[in-house]
Amino acid sequence: MIYLDNSATTQVRDEVAKFEYDCSREMYFNPSSVYAAGVAVRAELDTARATIMNCLDAPRDGKVYFTGSATEANNTILRGLAKKNKKILVGAGEHPSVYETAKSLKNDGYEVGFVKLQTNGLLDIEHLNSLLDDTVGLVSFIHVSNETGAINDIAEISKLIKSKSPKCIVHCDGVQAFLKIPFSLSETLVDAYTISSHKIHGPKGVGAFYIRNGININPIILGGGQEGGVRSGTENAPAILAFVLACKIMASKLQQNYAHALELKNLLIKNLSEKCTDFSINSLSAPTSPNILSVAFAGVKGEVLLHALESHGVLVSTGSACSSKLSGNRVLQAMGQSPSVIEGNIRFSFSEFNTADEIIMTVNYLAEELTKLRKLKR
Amino acid sequence: MIYLDNSATTQVRDEVAKFEYDCSREMYFNPSSVYAAGVAVRAELDTARATIMNCLDAPRDGKVYFTGSATEANNTILRGLAKKNKKILVGAGEHPSVYETAKSLKNDGYEVGFVKLQTNGLLDIEHLNSLLDDTVGLVSFIHVSNETGAINDIAEISKLIKSKSPKCIVHCDGVQAFLKIPFSLSETLVDAYTISSHKIHGPKGVGAFYIRNGININPIILGGGQEGGVRSGTENAPAILAFVLACKIMASKLQQNYAHALELKNLLIKNLSEKCTDFSINSLSAPTSPNILSVAFAGVKGEVLLHALESHGVLVSTGSACSSKLSGNRVLQAMGQSPSVIEGNIRFSFSEFNTADEIIMTVNYLAEELTKLRKLKR
Repeated sequence: MIYLDNSATTQVRDEVAKFEYDCSREMYFNPSSVYAAGVAVRAELDTARATIMNCLDAPRDGKVYFTGSATEANNTILRGLAKKNKKILVGAGEHPSVYETAKSLKNDGYEVGFVKLQTNGLLDIEHLNSLLDDTVGLVSFIHVSNETGAINDIAEISKLIKSKSPKCIVHCDGVQAFLKIPFSLSETLVDAYTISSHKIHGPKGVGAFYIRNGININPIILGGGQEGGVRSGTENAPAILAFVLACKIMASKLQQNYAHALELKNLLIKNLSEKCTDFSINSLSAPTSPNILSVAFAGVKGEVLLHALESHGVLVSTGSACSSKLSGNRVLQAMGQSPSVIEGNIRFSFSEFNTADEIIMTVNYLAEELTKLRKLKR
Repeated sequence: MIYLDNSATTQVRDEVAKFEYDCSREMYFNPSSVYAAGVAVRAELDTARATIMNCLDAPRDGKVYFTGSATEANNTILRGLAKKNKKILVGAGEHPSVYETAKSLKNDGYEVGFVKLQTNGLLDIEHLNSLLDDTVGLVSFIHVSNETGAINDIAEISKLIKSKSPKCIVHCDGVQAFLKIPFSLSETLVDAYTISSHKIHGPKGVGAFYIRNGININPIILGGGQEGGVRSGTENAPAILAFVLACKIMASKLQQNYAHALELKNLLIKNLSEKCTDFSINSLSAPTSPNILSVAFAGVKGEVLLHALESHGVLVSTGSACSSKLSGNRVLQAMGQSPSVIEGNIRFSFSEFNTADEIIMTVNYLAEELTKLRKLKR
């Protein structure tokens, strides 16, 4: 099997899965318990928060909160910070957890605007600028596009937002950026940042967000008051601690993994150019993550091509798993892509476990299948 | 260590933790993916739903949905089914995930009533009856009290509710009942039922609810539309499948574990009677779960007694972990207990891994510490 769908989810690293096993056996105590064994788990969770702060190079006047998924984190930020008398702006290319929440808030009577995308998949800064004034209370945009890998400049954009609306809260969905591309939250004016465990070889069922102190969230999940009241429910300490181990490993290998992914991506582009015809690479003119390559093949249906590759053991996607059930591809549409480009789209996404040989084999299969499929169509 | 806090959380069963490890290594594919490896995980999740339906003996015209916790499940049910033109009733003895959500709904302008408890911890049926009419759209009450173990008769109560308000949705929080006491949802008129993984030796981070078909939930977590749109976010398949393994094991041992817990509970009561003085057992006159014994010791503070027992390696709680941060004990207050009873309260909760010897040792330590503490006080 050649797994090239690492933006959908990743395999849990063996030592991380083993550590989660150990924690579920040894550190199972309820962190809300008052006896030492429970207090110790709570202390481990606080150390975990500090580790993530370091991984983000986050401003010290903030805190990390754990959730059951990045989707829940995005929902918590958007719904929990929405105010009826303040505008909310979100990118047109957001992950559904932000986009659908924004649409729902609009239905509930909140004033919500959608910021256009450029044809290269980046947020349209001019359009954002035209929408910004001091009535805007919350802006949420994606750091690295889960569809095309386009990297928004979170430092520049957050500074623009604060210059037009100093009290506006700036949120970034960093799920595809965290520990995949280097950045420092401290060098931005971002107030809140969402991350996910299962995209970096950690367990599923854990998300988190950083948020600056003094920003009050109206929680969407109420109960025992865990996570400072922001997210009730018994903390999933074994998975959280395993997530943080995954973070530490990814942080220690960030440069190395970045270089490796970039090598694979460039190799893929080079082989595609040599062996395939009639394709276009999405977000080619934008800075992109080395982990994602989104390619539209003319004259074929992405899903048919996906299954053809699957017959060779190569797993890719036509777009984000989360949008696979929705009609078409909203993000590519927002980039102004034609229906035929969208129809023939394939997303390749890499991890450190992929090899150059896998890429070469994948393009060989791809060339073979493309020829077959295009002949059939004629 | 003698762990008698199994209502707060349980140790993950070794084979369950190992199975979760295996699943996170082998079945890590995103269930929303269209290739066979993803589809296979989605199919496993559907088999898991069916297994839980069987464990609940649930009516076939319903479905099981997975969440990140039982707290999230309770929030989803309450907020997702609340309607402005219909009354909501919840018990005064509910877990905070129901109680705090109900209070929040009331703040948001919904009409919410709280049903009193009897002094034995059971729902006050007469009070419930007096509040019921066809303007009531949702009633939520706990099956087994997490504080005292009192078992509400969900068949009788659900029938009463439907007789007064046939279209009313009846929800039970079954976290402390599921696979600990025998029951059949099909013999009740309950429409929705919440369960938790980490209370039955499954992993943390997984809850679920059963709900009859045709009841539309307004989801609290939006995004990729997973779980039939009811709960977005990548499904935590490894933990869900491990949870369902825990369910199967617990189901196969239900009678045996019930008998074992009852033996331990009766042994605890017998030893307490022989070796300790000045205590009262909560919910003594009610049918109770064999897994929970809530005892108020006069003249001592529960938390002091807890730490005294902890010094002998015995872990208990003063009440539910989720309420330990809140002032006093709301549920015991709702039962009309005096402040002194509430102050000296200890909850013992058992699992199949506890032994008779542990119970005998616990009461010996308890008698010794009670004597010391009460002497100090004089």
